[in-house]
Amino acid sequence: MSRGLDYDSINENVKQVAYAVRGELYLRASELQKEGKKIVFTNVGNPHALGQKPLTFPRQVVALCQAPFLLDDPNVGLVFPADAIERAKHYLSLTSGGLGAYSDSRGLPGIRKEVADFIERRDGYPSDPELIYLTDGASKGVMQMLNTIIRNSNDGILVPVPQYPLYSAAISLFGGSLVPYYLEETANWGLDIDNIHQSVIQARIKGITVRAMVIINPGNPTGQCLSEANIRALLKFCFQEKLVLLADEVYQQNIYQDERPFISARKILLDMGPPLSKEVQLVSFHTVSKGYWGECGQRGGYFEMTNIPPKTVDEIYKVASISLSPNVPGQIFMGLMVNPPKPGDISYLKFVTESKAILESLRRRAHIMTDGFNSCKNVVCNFTEGAMYSFPQIQLPPRAIEAAKRAGKVPDVFYCLKLLEATGISTVPGSGFGQKEGIFHLRTTILPAEEDMPAIMDSFKKFNDEFMEQYEDGRSYSRM
Amino acid sequence: MSRGLDYDSINENVKQVAYAVRGELYLRASELQKEGKKIVFTNVGNPHALGQKPLTFPRQVVALCQAPFLLDDPNVGLVFPADAIERAKHYLSLTSGGLGAYSDSRGLPGIRKEVADFIERRDGYPSDPELIYLTDGASKGVMQMLNTIIRNSNDGILVPVPQYPLYSAAISLFGGSLVPYYLEETANWGLDIDNIHQSVIQARIKGITVRAMVIINPGNPTGQCLSEANIRALLKFCFQEKLVLLADEVYQQNIYQDERPFISARKILLDMGPPLSKEVQLVSFHTVSKGYWGECGQRGGYFEMTNIPPKTVDEIYKVASISLSPNVPGQIFMGLMVNPPKPGDISYLKFVTESKAILESLRRRAHIMTDGFNSCKNVVCNFTEGAMYSFPQIQLPPRAIEAAKRAGKVPDVFYCLKLLEATGISTVPGSGFGQKEGIFHLRTTILPAEEDMPAIMDSFKKFNDEFMEQYEDGRSYSRM
Repeated sequence: MSRGLDYDSINENVKQVAYAVRGELYLRASELQKEGKKIVFTNVGNPHALGQKPLTFPRQVVALCQAPFLLDDPNVGLVFPADAIERAKHYLSLTSGGLGAYSDSRGLPGIRKEVADFIERRDGYPSDPELIYLTDGASKGVMQMLNTIIRNSNDGILVPVPQYPLYSAAISLFGGSLVPYYLEETANWGLDIDNIHQSVIQARIKGITVRAMVIINPGNPTGQCLSEANIRALLKFCFQEKLVLLADEVYQQNIYQDERPFISARKILLDMGPPLSKEVQLVSFHTVSKGYWGECGQRGGYFEMTNIPPKTVDEIYKVASISLSPNVPGQIFMGLMVNPPKPGDISYLKFVTESKAILESLRRRAHIMTDGFNSCKNVVCNFTEGAMYSFPQIQLPPRAIEAAKRAGKVPDVFYCLKLLEATGISTVPGSGFGQKEGIFHLRTTILPAEEDMPAIMDSFKKFNDEFMEQYEDGRSYSRM
Repeated sequence: MSRGLDYDSINENVKQVAYAVRGELYLRASELQKEGKKIVFTNVGNPHALGQKPLTFPRQVVALCQAPFLLDDPNVGLVFPADAIERAKHYLSLTSGGLGAYSDSRGLPGIRKEVADFIERRDGYPSDPELIYLTDGASKGVMQMLNTIIRNSNDGILVPVPQYPLYSAAISLFGGSLVPYYLEETANWGLDIDNIHQSVIQARIKGITVRAMVIINPGNPTGQCLSEANIRALLKFCFQEKLVLLADEVYQQNIYQDERPFISARKILLDMGPPLSKEVQLVSFHTVSKGYWGECGQRGGYFEMTNIPPKTVDEIYKVASISLSPNVPGQIFMGLMVNPPKPGDISYLKFVTESKAILESLRRRAHIMTDGFNSCKNVVCNFTEGAMYSFPQIQLPPRAIEAAKRAGKVPDVFYCLKLLEATGISTVPGSGFGQKEGIFHLRTTILPAEEDMPAIMDSFKKFNDEFMEQYEDGRSYSRM
């Protein structure tokens, strides 16, 4: 008899989980870093790790909340502005015991109210704080919703392919079935409802009941911004098929073009009126980790529920309460994100200057990267309209694919490992996000510092073009 | 066809979860509070919510880490001591990008090293940082381990009864079977190996494979400290039965007697030598939420794995990586907890004074509360040797039990609701922790401020004794 944590006796769903973002490439990059090699970690959307500075005002407020004794210190005004001090007092007044006390398992009521006000301003419809739950980052919320929906392996979740592997990993962990729908690369990673319908029919033939659908808008890893018409069609489809729509909108502040501004799935749903607006079950996710905040390490997020029956909301509350409460500093970051300094506040100008600089630089970096990839041999890349990623297609020559096979690697993993060894650029192979047969990509963030970007793209191009030449003419360079 | 989040169609395991600590009593208390009634929340071990002040030094360090721009501010020395500034620089140097960057999914390597050093000092055996994973509070770690172990409803987990409902809730959520073993109230809530063995045999008859065993030491809700001999016997039993031992040791700093100091299960296991020390699979949990820290809202914790095969450790890493990383400020609190100021440091005296004051007051409160309960009619209560709880037995008269039945309530829920309405004291009925048939308890924390304690116990006694009189002689007071 084996012991409970022997590998052959643990939960099979755990073993089934694949999580590429921190998979083989990441592990190898970490090894190389330990050996002293300079690594550009573009595998995770982790802006501060690549040098992005935190916004000053929210950090001042949270620092003061952590050190409430400073509020009585006569010298506090020498190091903190008055509006940060006021705001810290405000947030502490929303807690019962400061940052060291568990909050309600759904998060502090006062901050959920600030989130509701933000949603109302954004969408033009009131939002109910009782239907907003704060979480330790958006991922935890996504996991909780999937765990609530999935009963067994016959329950299917529609997930875009390529997809952010949180979804495939969580669906495996909870023992459900991922039902892929393919995004159309040649149509700038758009969604095609007929294709999605086909996916549902195919799943049904296999005995799978499709129960929910995931959209990621702006897209990860694909960087597209969905059009209002596209989302409208999707919502109709969810209505007809009685699917819960899980709207991953964590990149809603990361928009790098003006034709398709972000519009929330919730706004479009409510605009559509009854019966849809009263019937389609929608859960929307947001985070402090993205946008121009990039406060990943703080783990702050929320989800908002629309048309979810009260008894189910209660069940979700109950399960959230098992782990007591989301971290309170992360909740305060969320409050600050949805309620930033206003015109006239002492810190307003600084806050706006800092956030604008970040967003405008991201927009420029999106262009530098897309143009850089498109200048490379056998690489084609859609423009990063939003989010934080570039997802170029790497057209591998047959000889490269053969070489990969000989090395026992998936071809894009083979390419990305070579890239890592040659340049220190740590990417994620496209196969980690799901790919059509014979098509290869990689994902990189657009987050390296703007001043480093030209050198990184040069280094990439040099590697890539030599790689392509090598495998197109069959020569082999030992230094690869 | 119902929709994915309609109550009748969600995951049955979610519905099966019961979580008493934030159950009916807590919800009613929250309502009363909204109506303006003063509530003493003793339902959760949440010290800061009841007025415990945070320790100054760790808060200074984390505040500085949140506001790294202060480290260059010439005025910083006016509000922060030099050793807090040094320590903040130290922790920031362990991150790659400060608190806003995701860390490794296992936590920052530098802090895991500090935890390993702490464990080595505590136990006298080296500890490997690679086998220490930082978590968002201990609960998240417990849930991850149970999710790894439980495959289906035939997998059983031995859990002490009365138990902290995290365990029953998580086992339900992951679809396993809770196998209860009863703690012996008359033997000061001790463990009896023969009884545990009987529980395993009974489970086997029902087709359940017992795969792991939970101990909570010091006990929650029961407050006992296990003896070395008791743990030694347990470890032998785990060895014989090939059970993973999940050692919930979050109250290891909360000890209120001198006969049985805390000894970790790991130390005792390693003291026992081979084959046990090489074979028994042990996972130990710790947190920043308890001790004299009480930093519940920060959500910091860790688990340490002993004798877990590397392939399983990798799987646990993979699943941890789905939600990217535990919150980084919580990790720094953990670093500070295991590596507090040392003699000679500027902040040492203050730190020691603050922490001693909290611990000594908790010890006094444990006495006030136990004595208070034992002075009440039909109430008997073991001394709180450790942890943060008092768990008095409430011997309800038959008429009270009948009245509860008429009201459609479990008898101890009935009693606790009456107590709440009459006094504002919010407790958790013993049935939420598991009870033998016909035996009733309640759990309260020992955390109300020491100066409030006599009045709270008077108010409890007045309610209780009147309640008992009412139901012993059959009279009914309308104001109850």
